[in-house]
Amino acid sequence: MKEKLTIVKIGGSIVDDDAVLSEFLDAFVKLEGKKLLVHGGGKVATTVANSLGIGATMIEGRRITDDQMIDVVIMTYGGLINKKLVAQLSSRGIECIGLTGADGNSILATKRPIKHGVDFGWVGDIESVNNEFLTRLISSNLLPIMAPLTLDAKGQLLNTNADTIASELAVALAQDFDVSLNFIFDRKGVMKNVNDPKSLVKSIDVTSYHRLKTDQIITDGMIPKLDNAFSTIECGVNLVRLLNVSALSQLQNPDFDEYTTIH
Amino acid sequence: MKEKLTIVKIGGSIVDDDAVLSEFLDAFVKLEGKKLLVHGGGKVATTVANSLGIGATMIEGRRITDDQMIDVVIMTYGGLINKKLVAQLSSRGIECIGLTGADGNSILATKRPIKHGVDFGWVGDIESVNNEFLTRLISSNLLPIMAPLTLDAKGQLLNTNADTIASELAVALAQDFDVSLNFIFDRKGVMKNVNDPKSLVKSIDVTSYHRLKTDQIITDGMIPKLDNAFSTIECGVNLVRLLNVSALSQLQNPDFDEYTTIH
Repeated sequence: MKEKLTIVKIGGSIVDDDAVLSEFLDAFVKLEGKKLLVHGGGKVATTVANSLGIGATMIEGRRITDDQMIDVVIMTYGGLINKKLVAQLSSRGIECIGLTGADGNSILATKRPIKHGVDFGWVGDIESVNNEFLTRLISSNLLPIMAPLTLDAKGQLLNTNADTIASELAVALAQDFDVSLNFIFDRKGVMKNVNDPKSLVKSIDVTSYHRLKTDQIITDGMIPKLDNAFSTIECGVNLVRLLNVSALSQLQNPDFDEYTTIH
Repeated sequence: MKEKLTIVKIGGSIVDDDAVLSEFLDAFVKLEGKKLLVHGGGKVATTVANSLGIGATMIEGRRITDDQMIDVVIMTYGGLINKKLVAQLSSRGIECIGLTGADGNSILATKRPIKHGVDFGWVGDIESVNNEFLTRLISSNLLPIMAPLTLDAKGQLLNTNADTIASELAVALAQDFDVSLNFIFDRKGVMKNVNDPKSLVKSIDVTSYHRLKTDQIITDGMIPKLDNAFSTIECGVNLVRLLNVSALSQLQNPDFDEYTTIH
């Protein structure tokens, strides 16, 4: 039987707020067993870029990662955010190690090709995960903390979506572990009515997912997230959860189910 | 018999110059056996700080690491420089991992106490090195790349001199390895006359060191470096070399001796 591995992904709303981050880390350290943390960016990259006078080039609402911006992304995601997470978990007694996809060639990628004349810049599409390297770290009781950066064959670091990284790591590590993949949200999970806490959808399978889409309860930005969750399950991940920080602190409680499980 | 470990320290003059850095990395990857790289800062921290409008507070010619500057140091040393070294070594086929003293609680420190009313800010004096953690990485064929940052007991990252980090790591790892410590210089090593390449002092022991100081051949900034080198040797490090990048590429050549060995 494979050992359990809990992969947790946090985004900007956690890393940007010291109080929320502290609450998250307290809950995260209490989770039993092997763990891996993936973090996203947050506002600090934009703040630093603006302060440095690096103008934003936006295409379809997305910022282009140009030559200057990739350096800001490496500094802020790979440096400031990643190493502060490492420092705070280390001081809580956790033996952890901050990584990018370059460390141990852990996540190799290719620069996203130009499509319809649009070049998103130094953005990476994942090609492969070095699960042997990550399994070696995890098996020696190290907790990897992954920044949203990948490496191309020429030694260039690339900006990569943290949700995608979490999913690809989950699929790759499912070869060696019994993986649960947990996306930390502001909300409790998928809500039928975002204004009604009691409307939480606690469990979604492929059949109910199609119904929720037809009924337009799941729309827009949630669809790629859930499509992604289902595809990781098809690829061997045991379960995917969408949950908030408060739910994470109660995950060990068998009577607690205030989150969305995708299976 | 202990396995050999080659520790190499590079400073700003290497990391600031892409061509020199590339020459260094090509030589470094060719060194046989287990290796560990320590890097210093360089101009990028000052450039970023200036761009961000963070004014420099200097005391006795040294910049104070205040609240804003430590974030710049974490971003540039722990992020930009460290991860670019990792990326470039990874793309040369080396399985390496970028670290700060926070990763794996590898280098614990305390904030330098205020002396004569001078507070240098977030600067760390090393308390201990987690050689068990580093030995575990090195023994599993990973090459650690250490940024000049240490961790205090409260989870705060501290700015720490890279020469000191290299020396402390060498001493701690001498428990597990046969360690050589190599400081990469602009010059060939200790020169009797800096304008005469033939005046290289190829070997220095404690007796000749005292004579070189009395004769004022070794003065000023070199004295703490050499004091430091001799103290690492007293603590079990096998030998210390001062050498330039070109010499590093010839270290495997038994007939080559154009560097300074301290023993």
